[in-house]
Amino acid sequence: MEILKTKVAIIGSGPAGLLLGQLLYKAGIDHILIEQRSAEYVAGRIRAGILEQVSVDLLEEAGVDAELKVKGLPHNGIEILTNGEKYRVDLTKLTGGKQVTVYGQTEVTKDLMLARTQAGLSSFYEAHNVQIHDFYTDQPSVTFGYKDQKFIIQCDFIAGCDGYHGICRASVPKDKIKTFEKVYPFGWLGVLADVPPVADELIYVQSERGFALCSMRSNTRSRYYLQVPLTDKVENWSDEQFWEELKNRLDPESREKLVIGPSIEKSIAPLRSFVTEPMRFGQLFLAGDAAHIVPPTGAKGLNLAASDIAFLSKALIEYYQTGSENGLEHYSENCLKRVWKAERFSWWMTHLLHRFETETEFEHKIKQAELSYILGSEAGQTTLAENYVGLPLQKAG
Amino acid sequence: MEILKTKVAIIGSGPAGLLLGQLLYKAGIDHILIEQRSAEYVAGRIRAGILEQVSVDLLEEAGVDAELKVKGLPHNGIEILTNGEKYRVDLTKLTGGKQVTVYGQTEVTKDLMLARTQAGLSSFYEAHNVQIHDFYTDQPSVTFGYKDQKFIIQCDFIAGCDGYHGICRASVPKDKIKTFEKVYPFGWLGVLADVPPVADELIYVQSERGFALCSMRSNTRSRYYLQVPLTDKVENWSDEQFWEELKNRLDPESREKLVIGPSIEKSIAPLRSFVTEPMRFGQLFLAGDAAHIVPPTGAKGLNLAASDIAFLSKALIEYYQTGSENGLEHYSENCLKRVWKAERFSWWMTHLLHRFETETEFEHKIKQAELSYILGSEAGQTTLAENYVGLPLQKAG
Repeated sequence: MEILKTKVAIIGSGPAGLLLGQLLYKAGIDHILIEQRSAEYVAGRIRAGILEQVSVDLLEEAGVDAELKVKGLPHNGIEILTNGEKYRVDLTKLTGGKQVTVYGQTEVTKDLMLARTQAGLSSFYEAHNVQIHDFYTDQPSVTFGYKDQKFIIQCDFIAGCDGYHGICRASVPKDKIKTFEKVYPFGWLGVLADVPPVADELIYVQSERGFALCSMRSNTRSRYYLQVPLTDKVENWSDEQFWEELKNRLDPESREKLVIGPSIEKSIAPLRSFVTEPMRFGQLFLAGDAAHIVPPTGAKGLNLAASDIAFLSKALIEYYQTGSENGLEHYSENCLKRVWKAERFSWWMTHLLHRFETETEFEHKIKQAELSYILGSEAGQTTLAENYVGLPLQKAG
Repeated sequence: MEILKTKVAIIGSGPAGLLLGQLLYKAGIDHILIEQRSAEYVAGRIRAGILEQVSVDLLEEAGVDAELKVKGLPHNGIEILTNGEKYRVDLTKLTGGKQVTVYGQTEVTKDLMLARTQAGLSSFYEAHNVQIHDFYTDQPSVTFGYKDQKFIIQCDFIAGCDGYHGICRASVPKDKIKTFEKVYPFGWLGVLADVPPVADELIYVQSERGFALCSMRSNTRSRYYLQVPLTDKVENWSDEQFWEELKNRLDPESREKLVIGPSIEKSIAPLRSFVTEPMRFGQLFLAGDAAHIVPPTGAKGLNLAASDIAFLSKALIEYYQTGSENGLEHYSENCLKRVWKAERFSWWMTHLLHRFETETEFEHKIKQAELSYILGSEAGQTTLAENYVGLPLQKAG
């Protein structure tokens, strides 16, 4: 058993873990990153694609925004198609100048991995049998196997950035943790294709046939989604059927403009809302999907991971630079305030734009009235816009 | 059978019917009012107490705002108590100068009845066996008994202002009408008492023990409500128990200030959302509660009745003065746009502030996050304020 010593052991090399590592490195705080999957697998995952300004700022702070600055597409509005009519929500005008940036999570991950390699930071990919220990004491540790060797990391803190299915949250005693969950009765069938996007901005589609989203990763790579029953199998959806059904949910103008092509990725993802309280357990801090999941409708998943890391990195840096535990003590509270608001917004967007088989006619009419009110009122549009671009980071202490 | 002829037969002498009568009278259009209850009963009903500007304007137009101008209390804000903290929503600041007026529906009814008496307009109170006929032809009629005599009114139009349980909606063939409904799993226990209100403005209370509302009819008459299970019987609630439970739901400051006294009215009302589509059936026009019901949380019931009458009176006056049927043809559409938005708002306020036994912990947290977002955001507060003071009357045609 080889013994390693560090200040922070980071479990998981998604954007949360990688970003935390980079920020700690910039502040001169020693850390080790452990990941069960291979680097290739991590770099290849197709995920979100919309960054809030808060996330962009953090990537800049971490010094990994060179590609983002060149290739990221600033978006100043979104379109909502309902009842066959398109409404534009002018995000920038309604929020006093804010915008979002289209830039794939895949790209963010690659940029962070490259920066990590360039800095020569220590990472264990394909670690097996990862376990965390004694995080309710001041001598927590992480054990894992790597190739044929066994390791133990002795550290001050463990950052649990290992996602919804990770081992960090699962290691917390049941009586110390409370979880909140909602599972939605449908999934998103997503297709990635190297075709130009149907429009310059995202189109959120509410239709009698179900929700659809016209999104993109770049000016030549489109990402489209369809609401589908959870019972659907991705192998039963041909590309042809996908494009046909997408056209059925669009307005005539977009249908006309839509450029189709072979899918380079196609998958069905379930939709879930999930929150863990608290997010700190002794010396263990959960961040990102390990602590909370949102349905993708509001594009909040990656951004919440980034804001967790904003709070966690500042708290750790403050601790090592000044000895103050103030940031660490308020970590849960600071994150959860923002998390619950983003959960609320994501639930609301999902609820409003999707078709629920179980909804009554009254509920359906109320939803139509709500959309009509929101889109017809400047205040209503502003509530959508200010949540979409991201609420400000607020500290409780 | 005595035959009477008139232009408009108005069924029901609640605020909708009385207001329509007054507006038609001012425009020189002949009408007759028929009511099954006694004048005393109608005048004695305790109902809503908050008027939107649209309603105040209409009462002014009808020339029955003398008392209202003297005794109505303009309110520029409401308070919301949640998690033990009070937040003020500045209605006037957020809506560019709009306000609401506290003035009991009972007073509105009395003012309208007095004006009717002074004008010598013909009304049949305590009419029995009221029936409407042939409203899909151009010769509709109303038959009823009055004292020992039978009457038939031959008219051009019938205005169905006879409430949720009235005969007008019930007379429409089932295949011509669609209804939407939601019944809430609780009621409001209301107490009217001659004590000064606990605060200058209304306090909407969200608490773990359930919703409460501190309202008023004047500076010396208070109206308080408690959310109670539908299984509760009003006779099992003593005044003492009522005040005790109200105090339990209030913040310490309000609890201290609360002046209690004997109830002069006490009742439990169920909460219901209900909409009829369309609101016109040939020569029959439904208005107010006959066509739609809202839970009282957003104070929209009386105001929706008033806006229906605004559309209906204008349409009838236009028809008799110019021969144009434009207003009549768009009556349903004009009303229903506003109705559904008010239904949405009333449902939302009810949903947000009440305790639902069946809600999951996730749903409860989402509601708290929504309240916290709404009260912490100017745009959020504005969505509440602009709906509360009343959305503008918009005509489709």
